[in-house]
Amino acid sequence: MQAYKTLEERFARISSIEDAIGILQWDSETLMPEGAADSRSDQLATLKGIAHELLTTPDMGDLLDQADQGSDRLDNWQRANLREMRRIYLHAAAVPADLVEASSRAVSRAELVWREARQNGDFALLLPQLSQVLAFQRQIGQVKGEALGLSPYDALLDSYDPGLRQATIDRLFADLGAELPALIQEAQERQKELPAIQPLNGPFPADDQRRIGEQLMKAVGFDFNRGRLDVSLHPFCGGSTGDVRITTRYSEANFMSALMGVLHETGHALYEQGRPELWRRQPVGLARGMSLHESQSLLIEMQACRSREFVTYLAPLVRETFQGEGPAWSPDNLHRLLTKVEPGFIRVDADEITYPAHILVRYKLDKALIGGDLPVQDLPSAFNDDVKKLLGLTVPNDSLGCLQDIHWPGGAWGYFPTYTLGAMTAAQLFRAACQVDADILPGLAKGDFAPLRTWLRANVHAKGSLMTTDQLLVAATGRPLTAEVFRAHLRERYLGR
Amino acid sequence: MQAYKTLEERFARISSIEDAIGILQWDSETLMPEGAADSRSDQLATLKGIAHELLTTPDMGDLLDQADQGSDRLDNWQRANLREMRRIYLHAAAVPADLVEASSRAVSRAELVWREARQNGDFALLLPQLSQVLAFQRQIGQVKGEALGLSPYDALLDSYDPGLRQATIDRLFADLGAELPALIQEAQERQKELPAIQPLNGPFPADDQRRIGEQLMKAVGFDFNRGRLDVSLHPFCGGSTGDVRITTRYSEANFMSALMGVLHETGHALYEQGRPELWRRQPVGLARGMSLHESQSLLIEMQACRSREFVTYLAPLVRETFQGEGPAWSPDNLHRLLTKVEPGFIRVDADEITYPAHILVRYKLDKALIGGDLPVQDLPSAFNDDVKKLLGLTVPNDSLGCLQDIHWPGGAWGYFPTYTLGAMTAAQLFRAACQVDADILPGLAKGDFAPLRTWLRANVHAKGSLMTTDQLLVAATGRPLTAEVFRAHLRERYLGR
Repeated sequence: MQAYKTLEERFARISSIEDAIGILQWDSETLMPEGAADSRSDQLATLKGIAHELLTTPDMGDLLDQADQGSDRLDNWQRANLREMRRIYLHAAAVPADLVEASSRAVSRAELVWREARQNGDFALLLPQLSQVLAFQRQIGQVKGEALGLSPYDALLDSYDPGLRQATIDRLFADLGAELPALIQEAQERQKELPAIQPLNGPFPADDQRRIGEQLMKAVGFDFNRGRLDVSLHPFCGGSTGDVRITTRYSEANFMSALMGVLHETGHALYEQGRPELWRRQPVGLARGMSLHESQSLLIEMQACRSREFVTYLAPLVRETFQGEGPAWSPDNLHRLLTKVEPGFIRVDADEITYPAHILVRYKLDKALIGGDLPVQDLPSAFNDDVKKLLGLTVPNDSLGCLQDIHWPGGAWGYFPTYTLGAMTAAQLFRAACQVDADILPGLAKGDFAPLRTWLRANVHAKGSLMTTDQLLVAATGRPLTAEVFRAHLRERYLGR
Repeated sequence: MQAYKTLEERFARISSIEDAIGILQWDSETLMPEGAADSRSDQLATLKGIAHELLTTPDMGDLLDQADQGSDRLDNWQRANLREMRRIYLHAAAVPADLVEASSRAVSRAELVWREARQNGDFALLLPQLSQVLAFQRQIGQVKGEALGLSPYDALLDSYDPGLRQATIDRLFADLGAELPALIQEAQERQKELPAIQPLNGPFPADDQRRIGEQLMKAVGFDFNRGRLDVSLHPFCGGSTGDVRITTRYSEANFMSALMGVLHETGHALYEQGRPELWRRQPVGLARGMSLHESQSLLIEMQACRSREFVTYLAPLVRETFQGEGPAWSPDNLHRLLTKVEPGFIRVDADEITYPAHILVRYKLDKALIGGDLPVQDLPSAFNDDVKKLLGLTVPNDSLGCLQDIHWPGGAWGYFPTYTLGAMTAAQLFRAACQVDADILPGLAKGDFAPLRTWLRANVHAKGSLMTTDQLLVAATGRPLTAEVFRAHLRERYLGR
């Protein structure tokens, strides 16, 4: 018991350092004056280094073993906590400090060059740096894989999403991919048969956008006593667990983009704020993984807030806020705007139905590059071929192709699939919730998220990392993750059947 | 040399933790949602604990000794850095971890009770907690004194102001105190002989106050590329050395209070921003001490910005900003408003000439309580007696008396004298600067702070902690600190002779 207690104390400390890092990173993106960047880098590097040292102190392995030996005296919660401690420890201890540092330096260099390369569509410029980042990622996958008994790519997946394996994704994505191109095609054809979608004409003052954003955040259930809404160049959900800070960016020409962004981040925030307060500084209190996290944002944004029900509530609200007039502001037109299908080159601008195609392209290349099956210099042509196949588009330059995302130069290999796994999870959870509680959809039509929130709290948020993702999904929806519900959702929403 | 280099690395790390703490504390006072207080406390306690551990690792004493032995191979800057490292280490290592913790807990309890006690003027309520805080402070003074070869009170002084001793303060304050009551008396009489001061009538919109505050901050020399101005309940200068953040609080009824507050904090900020960038993470790059820090704020606020010269520049500016009309907005009336003498009970509201009286009262009691010469239950009557003697006022209740400041329950014993030592230092530095550069005063009359700033940069800011405070003052003004220049300044400004 003593070993376990010592571990709890250590992890509580590490958690507070991570929380401090979260607030400092939020500050870097929102308020920090430019000239403070160097000093902030020093702070973050120092705190990250200390957290890593605390996590990998030489006696950590022994403490975990001792705690394991006495685990019959631990309760369920403590055993789950201990399991998560070991997982976090194994990931951290597997990578020698000099590899962590070398990889982190390569990422900094690559991110810098990437900005220029993307601007000029110049893949050759990024190639040397990208090759370095990839080489380090392969090495990290290798050593983590050895420590965890996994393939390199599975080891990378596991660091974003505990228990996630390539075999699972292959199966789910094959299932989705078989239907996706036809689905995109049909959805567009159906769209063309209907009368043209009316655009909403601004300008839409940023202050009004902020006000209605905050109003809807409160409706969804965001607790402003433990969080904030601010402005940053790239929207995110950050801060710390006890102080969740989401951001957005306002365009006066288009309020819908910021508003849907705010609702998306609110979904993330709800998961952060909804985990048990008393578990806050322990690994078992952490979010279960990136797929589940993304499912919470997509459940709120895509499943709930782009539903017909919610749009009947939203339409008069936005019309009043922005003093809109005419048929463009009808619930029907608004819903069509919010579910418009339009294949494009840029992932982050993609609609619900073409977004997964972007992910399928990236996932295939992500694992091929880590697996050594694709030379990195062949990335652009492979990328463009797949975009052609899945989206029917000819990529005109690499800025609109394989250079658009920061993930690869940023060293986030194994991350891309979680976006679409999140979308699948969201569909599956939302359907289960609506089946259990018939008040959820009628609630959304009145702007009342309480029934949905109650179900999410109980079935997702309150669980933290107590169970595996599969166990959580089985408990909440009756089965592990499947592509089927998501496919049905897309067919229903975009093909009306 | 190796030992010294290792020390530099350690102290750079500690400095980045302190910087992170500075930003997090700033955030707590400005933006943090209330419900995040517990999680923020965890973060701050963890980071402070880690900084303390890094500072007092068992090999630290040996490293310092080894570096000392090799100090003939160090240059001047490195030797000064090493001297500061040892000073910081001795202060930290002198106090056992359990005493640090017990004292910090006592302070938290006392601060909590103090808020209620102050509200109700109930000293008896605070007495038990205040006694505990005092007992711990005496113990800390004792152990630090033993480590540093100082009396307990000198050891406490030394932690805020390296090298500051009770004997010095006694002499300086006796000198000032001998003249102060008569000075206050005469200044009031002289004020009465002149026509009545015209009040400025608002309201003064907070936005306009912020705009003119920022404009004057820039004029003084604040670098917004490495700092910010925000709002908090209690104004302060915080953040980190590379990211200096000052705050203020706006009252729409009175713009002068916020504006002078902003200029005061800008003086602090100028010192923070003006120290050499390359020394940023080393002890020799730290501010020399609290008296010198306060001198920089008071030099800008009291010496420069309440001067006749600056007020001739300020008057038309504020008149235009707030669309003021009539004789109240004349430079002469404005200057009289800014130098109005009015004895009152509250230290933080005091004018330039009665403020030192508040400090003399507190200093005498501060050292008597630490020295054991005054039982803590006798504090209220002793406090009230001294206020009567120095300010001629009868304290009606302890809220307006010994309960008004957070310093004593907050465990900041030995801090009070630095306010008035700062005022003396400011007067002495400002006079020396004006004697060296005849452009300084005419510059202020045009809102041009460049000549003054140049002198301050070269003679104060750029020095960091390279020299002792005495050495710095001798180099800058030709002599160590004296009360004489400050007394002359008060006579000149308030008695016109």
